Amino acid sequence: MWSNCLLKTLSRRHSTSFRASDLAVHLTHTPKTMPHLDQSLIFGKNTTDHLFWVDWDFEKGWHTPQIVPFQPLVLDPCSSCFHYGTECLEGLKAYKTATGKTLLFRPDLNIQRLRKSARALALPDFDGAELLQCIRKLVDVDKKWVPDKKGYSMYIRPTMIGTHQQLGVTKPGSAKLFVVSALVGPYFPTGFNPVNLYCDETRIRAWPGGVGDKKIGGNYGPGIAYTAEINKLGYQQLLWLVKGNVTEVGTMNFFMLWKNKEGETELITPPLDGTILEGVTRDSILELTREWNEFKVTERAFSIHELTQAAEEGRIIEAFGAGTACIVCPVQKIFFKGVDYEIPMKLGKSGLLTKRLLDHILSIQYGEIEHPWSYKVDYN
Amino acid sequence: MWSNCLLKTLSRRHSTSFRASDLAVHLTHTPKTMPHLDQSLIFGKNTTDHLFWVDWDFEKGWHTPQIVPFQPLVLDPCSSCFHYGTECLEGLKAYKTATGKTLLFRPDLNIQRLRKSARALALPDFDGAELLQCIRKLVDVDKKWVPDKKGYSMYIRPTMIGTHQQLGVTKPGSAKLFVVSALVGPYFPTGFNPVNLYCDETRIRAWPGGVGDKKIGGNYGPGIAYTAEINKLGYQQLLWLVKGNVTEVGTMNFFMLWKNKEGETELITPPLDGTILEGVTRDSILELTREWNEFKVTERAFSIHELTQAAEEGRIIEAFGAGTACIVCPVQKIFFKGVDYEIPMKLGKSGLLTKRLLDHILSIQYGEIEHPWSYKVDYN
Repeated sequence: MWSNCLLKTLSRRHSTSFRASDLAVHLTHTPKTMPHLDQSLIFGKNTTDHLFWVDWDFEKGWHTPQIVPFQPLVLDPCSSCFHYGTECLEGLKAYKTATGKTLLFRPDLNIQRLRKSARALALPDFDGAELLQCIRKLVDVDKKWVPDKKGYSMYIRPTMIGTHQQLGVTKPGSAKLFVVSALVGPYFPTGFNPVNLYCDETRIRAWPGGVGDKKIGGNYGPGIAYTAEINKLGYQQLLWLVKGNVTEVGTMNFFMLWKNKEGETELITPPLDGTILEGVTRDSILELTREWNEFKVTERAFSIHELTQAAEEGRIIEAFGAGTACIVCPVQKIFFKGVDYEIPMKLGKSGLLTKRLLDHILSIQYGEIEHPWSYKVDYN
Repeated sequence: MWSNCLLKTLSRRHSTSFRASDLAVHLTHTPKTMPHLDQSLIFGKNTTDHLFWVDWDFEKGWHTPQIVPFQPLVLDPCSSCFHYGTECLEGLKAYKTATGKTLLFRPDLNIQRLRKSARALALPDFDGAELLQCIRKLVDVDKKWVPDKKGYSMYIRPTMIGTHQQLGVTKPGSAKLFVVSALVGPYFPTGFNPVNLYCDETRIRAWPGGVGDKKIGGNYGPGIAYTAEINKLGYQQLLWLVKGNVTEVGTMNFFMLWKNKEGETELITPPLDGTILEGVTRDSILELTREWNEFKVTERAFSIHELTQAAEEGRIIEAFGAGTACIVCPVQKIFFKGVDYEIPMKLGKSGLLTKRLLDHILSIQYGEIEHPWSYKVDYN
């Protein structure tokens, strides 16, 4: 079953791409001390011993890809990534199975999305299968950083930045693709910690005709400042609207299980209309629940008023955010126009479906269930 | 008249700001060779000998501000500026007068806007008057790079980036404010070079409730890719719409001189409604033309249909973009829904007002007219 068949989906060859077969590996002579696997781990702070990088420029195309000791980036202060938001990113994780295998979860989707994001910023394209092989090698080199304790994992952050050294707003003439990794703990170390959402229709994250569906730096910075404001009011995340329709929660996709007006039990999530991120976890939840075939599963635009009306009529069963960092994150309360709408949580700190999805996806990620979404890192 | 009275507008003191009086100046031992002042200068490529920088972190606040030899930035690859678009920028110029004085043009407006942009990204605030004094010192140190040839100038790029070294989407815990400069030539070395605009209502730059009025990196990256597409069709810049209303042209504000429906001669530009940049050149044009009092000057939302109808009825007199790089940039043609609308240009390559504004603003910038907008750099 560990067939690595995902490669097929990435196999379109580029005449101009770096090649994993050219990868130069320079190992560190001063490996870091592994931190303790406990609750003090800060997300993304404990970087591993190595990073991957490859440069591109307009004249030479892609240079030689390299794995090097973890080190700072040295960049001209005129590099376009500092000025014009020419930066895109991904986030995925490596997991250790009970039998000591190292797995990635659907890395093909992250790599496809990185290429889409890069195109939206006029950054160079590459062969996704080659990047996957490079990431595989990076994880293998740093495999001691993939913890053998369920809930812990290695977070992997592929990033591409414009390094063009002139101040004009022009197509980047050079770029750097790099991948850093960090040891991360469970998102909810002491069980679910549900979030309260603040919905403010005057603050807009993304809009039709924009780039809200791309994973690019500019989609995140302004949200940080907004979120800091509502944190002071006791809310953890924003529920983002577009033209009154629910789109995302914080930096996650949004799901709601409810009795719809027809009385059907329905899992509903906003559609991929260009204003929301094409989440890997979102896609996984849709595929799994459609396979289970126990309730209606719908992707369609729905308004905050449909949501608040359903809350008032007691039709909401549960609601949650979905993303790589937490997998699923239960929603406890939604503030809108002066009212806090309570969302039921059958299990106290989450709904039944939220917990079931967490457990099921974790068991795929940690290899307890063999599944085509798992990509095997180990070479033997 | 060189009273430096602009400082007053920046004089609000911060309990936590770096201070120009603490500025440490480390001069280069290897000054660069000045490039020739000719048409081969690429915008922003010929950086000067020094840069200004000052670090901030959550624990210590602002560190000691420094002027140092021009050098690369050395940053952890997990710095938030590479991932979450935590970056904002400004652009202004230093000019040499015929009598050898060095002037800045309305630097107070740029610094106020930088502070606004920083707040929108949860980056730290500072005392604008202190930054102005630091920039003044930087320009003074590099004053050989302010060319004594009209049309040439030193472009100054203040930038602030998040340098926080963890991968969570959180408020930056550290930041760097830096200022780089470069020798630049005239935007139109051989006289005006008018642009053709492509108007595509499906591509949206900014949106009400968003951050289109902030000068932050994320507002630029996606436009680069769109612009590269329309360049292939023979158009230089995009005319951006919001809900059918004209907003910006490329990275400039948009102005049109027309006979309005009431038969009045009117200079019209979109209002500061949060979707357009609060341009320093825009503000200067509005103030100057209102002072001239020769035609109606209006800031109001107007639609692309009003514009195309006026073009069809022969009521457009001229149109231009406005920004620091070019001051004004004549518009020759606007493509919308399959039609190229020709914009008149009385002087062949521009309209009369466009040329008059260019000449007038240049004569203020180069000190031929004494004006309160000029800020004197020289200490004696």
